[in-house]
Amino acid sequence: MQDVIRKLVQKNDTKIVMIVLDGVGGLPVQGSTELESAKTPNMDALAHISACGLHMPVGYGITPGSGPGHLGIFGYDPLEWQIGRGVLEALGVGMELRNTDVALRCNYSTFTEGLIKDRRAGRIPTDLNRELTKRLQDNIKQIDEAEIIFEPGLEHRFAVVIRFPEPIEKGSALINDTDPQKTGKAPLQPVPGNNQSERTARIAEKLIKQAADLLTDQERANYILLRGFAQVPDIPTFEEAFGLKALAIATYPMYRGLARLIGMDTPVVNGDIKEEIEFLKSNFHDYDFFFVHIKKTDSNGEDGNFEGKTAKISEFDGFLPEITELGPDVLIITGDHSTPSLIKEHSWHPVPVLLRSPYVLGRLSERFTERECTKGELGIFPAVSLLPLALANAGRLKKFGA
Amino acid sequence: MQDVIRKLVQKNDTKIVMIVLDGVGGLPVQGSTELESAKTPNMDALAHISACGLHMPVGYGITPGSGPGHLGIFGYDPLEWQIGRGVLEALGVGMELRNTDVALRCNYSTFTEGLIKDRRAGRIPTDLNRELTKRLQDNIKQIDEAEIIFEPGLEHRFAVVIRFPEPIEKGSALINDTDPQKTGKAPLQPVPGNNQSERTARIAEKLIKQAADLLTDQERANYILLRGFAQVPDIPTFEEAFGLKALAIATYPMYRGLARLIGMDTPVVNGDIKEEIEFLKSNFHDYDFFFVHIKKTDSNGEDGNFEGKTAKISEFDGFLPEITELGPDVLIITGDHSTPSLIKEHSWHPVPVLLRSPYVLGRLSERFTERECTKGELGIFPAVSLLPLALANAGRLKKFGA
Repeated sequence: MQDVIRKLVQKNDTKIVMIVLDGVGGLPVQGSTELESAKTPNMDALAHISACGLHMPVGYGITPGSGPGHLGIFGYDPLEWQIGRGVLEALGVGMELRNTDVALRCNYSTFTEGLIKDRRAGRIPTDLNRELTKRLQDNIKQIDEAEIIFEPGLEHRFAVVIRFPEPIEKGSALINDTDPQKTGKAPLQPVPGNNQSERTARIAEKLIKQAADLLTDQERANYILLRGFAQVPDIPTFEEAFGLKALAIATYPMYRGLARLIGMDTPVVNGDIKEEIEFLKSNFHDYDFFFVHIKKTDSNGEDGNFEGKTAKISEFDGFLPEITELGPDVLIITGDHSTPSLIKEHSWHPVPVLLRSPYVLGRLSERFTERECTKGELGIFPAVSLLPLALANAGRLKKFGA
Repeated sequence: MQDVIRKLVQKNDTKIVMIVLDGVGGLPVQGSTELESAKTPNMDALAHISACGLHMPVGYGITPGSGPGHLGIFGYDPLEWQIGRGVLEALGVGMELRNTDVALRCNYSTFTEGLIKDRRAGRIPTDLNRELTKRLQDNIKQIDEAEIIFEPGLEHRFAVVIRFPEPIEKGSALINDTDPQKTGKAPLQPVPGNNQSERTARIAEKLIKQAADLLTDQERANYILLRGFAQVPDIPTFEEAFGLKALAIATYPMYRGLARLIGMDTPVVNGDIKEEIEFLKSNFHDYDFFFVHIKKTDSNGEDGNFEGKTAKISEFDGFLPEITELGPDVLIITGDHSTPSLIKEHSWHPVPVLLRSPYVLGRLSERFTERECTKGELGIFPAVSLLPLALANAGRLKKFGA
């Protein structure tokens, strides 16, 4: 279907704003969901004159990670375009990835007498992680033909990018995890699963050895385990696929990284909702499409903080008039997935969607909530259909067939 | 899925009537859609005891042409069965097409000193078009092994069928348009894109030459441009696919032509709704399935004539009792796509559906309108699922699996 859409795309000067309240969908606690408990007079008024519904990120019963959650609402089938763990980890710590790179996530671990005694090196403090990762970076800058780039994460986690001098072939990261998954077992060797991955595996093997040599003074963090070898998918850019010049406005690196994978512009934005809306306003003339990512709804959901998530939704509502005053041709408010405080993690529930344009029925939903959105004209629909719907409402899709 | 359906089909003596109010779906103008503004006591009463919902012709955001719009509600996946422009054009001017034919749409154009000066020959009057097309037909009846059939359209447009003596292979019409798309450029030669298209291209080349020789006395319409080479798809008939002996009742040639492509009987019917219903009544004993096409809802929508479209819907409502009195086992009222007067062309919006049979829940929709249909038991569903639903309600589908 993405091929069909691509052939129908036409450009014009309309503007589409997509607000993603991360993890916005919820479940009732004492009868009401977070959206139902929030004070949202602006969103509710907008929902009343908008097309409402719920999108299904991947499929019934499937809980999406952040990667598939966002790819779906960006119009990429998340089952077709899977983003490897190493890539997500690298994006999450703010690394830039190119088509020359293999990314992996790494653990510091404890290695004694040929066996892994602790797969997480006793969850060393993040400060120690930073110190050791700097040591690795200072001493390992290049292995064979590839540049090696390190970036610390939290506790025992860090990310590595193996950057080759030229764009790499598809399938260059088919390498097993070296983590034996159980303590008391020997670490595995990185073994290439195909020809293209051979040099990556060779470099990984040297990386493990060189790191171990540099960590001999450490009692706990004296060895590294490599996981999630991945390269960036050869995915059509947002401009190629949908003819949209797009700006991502996100304060967290991983969401900027995801947007960058599909070629959106991703300048660093610091702050929270207020600063993001300011940024939207000051760049409104320069792009066709605006992805505005609001993180804290999800963070509160994951903490099980019902009131915190509710408050964040109410806070966003206060800024909504500043967005509508910009007069986007199409305005969408949704989430990338649900994160009910009740569950404290991502969930499989469909996600409320509001789409405002001149070409909607409206008057079917009284509020922007899970239950009111079930009454809307969009029904429950695949997330991947949201972007085509936005394009149609912006007059950016030609007729299919005669 | 069509293969699955096909294996489940069983015949019986039930009758299915599908009324297609072309482009019936609309959008609010001053708060109400065309269906909401129309006086439709009969449809509303029927909606209340019917299964209601909305069908999605091709996909979210996709605006269908008339071809894909009808194929979908006839149970053929419009993404799988694409009908070429030349075929649609030929059907639209009332030509009959066979599996021996390549159809194309043609323009009269102005050709001077090797360049196209006007791609539409100054939009010559239709009368002159008729005169010239008759001249071409009188002088060009055969080129090489193929019969050549001309049919005038409006202004500068006409259609040509290249009829070979025997059924042609798939892919026999893979030939570029000769229209250079811009004035001041040389016309293109028809170039075959594969082996099967070689003889078609050879004949097209001779056709251009012979037509030019016959048009030398014309100042404006002295050359022809060929576009949209296409052959009829090798599509299973309605009888083969669904076991239904079908009658199409349509006053416009293109809709009869579409129905004929899938093997429906398509006698000429003149007049409007009244005459169509009379025709339905007098043939009700002779078929299993009746496609009744009502055109003017769409025509008014395309003209942006909200009141005209509303009036046409109200007019149809007056005839509805004559249809229900026939006692069809399954009665469907829907459209092939939406044509909101607000937009003045086909749109991507899902289309209201009402399905009446003894085997429905009912009492969910108070009227036959876009908004009331969102409340119905059918939800928003792919157009291609409508025909299987009709078959099931007519007891014409066996159980799947044990």
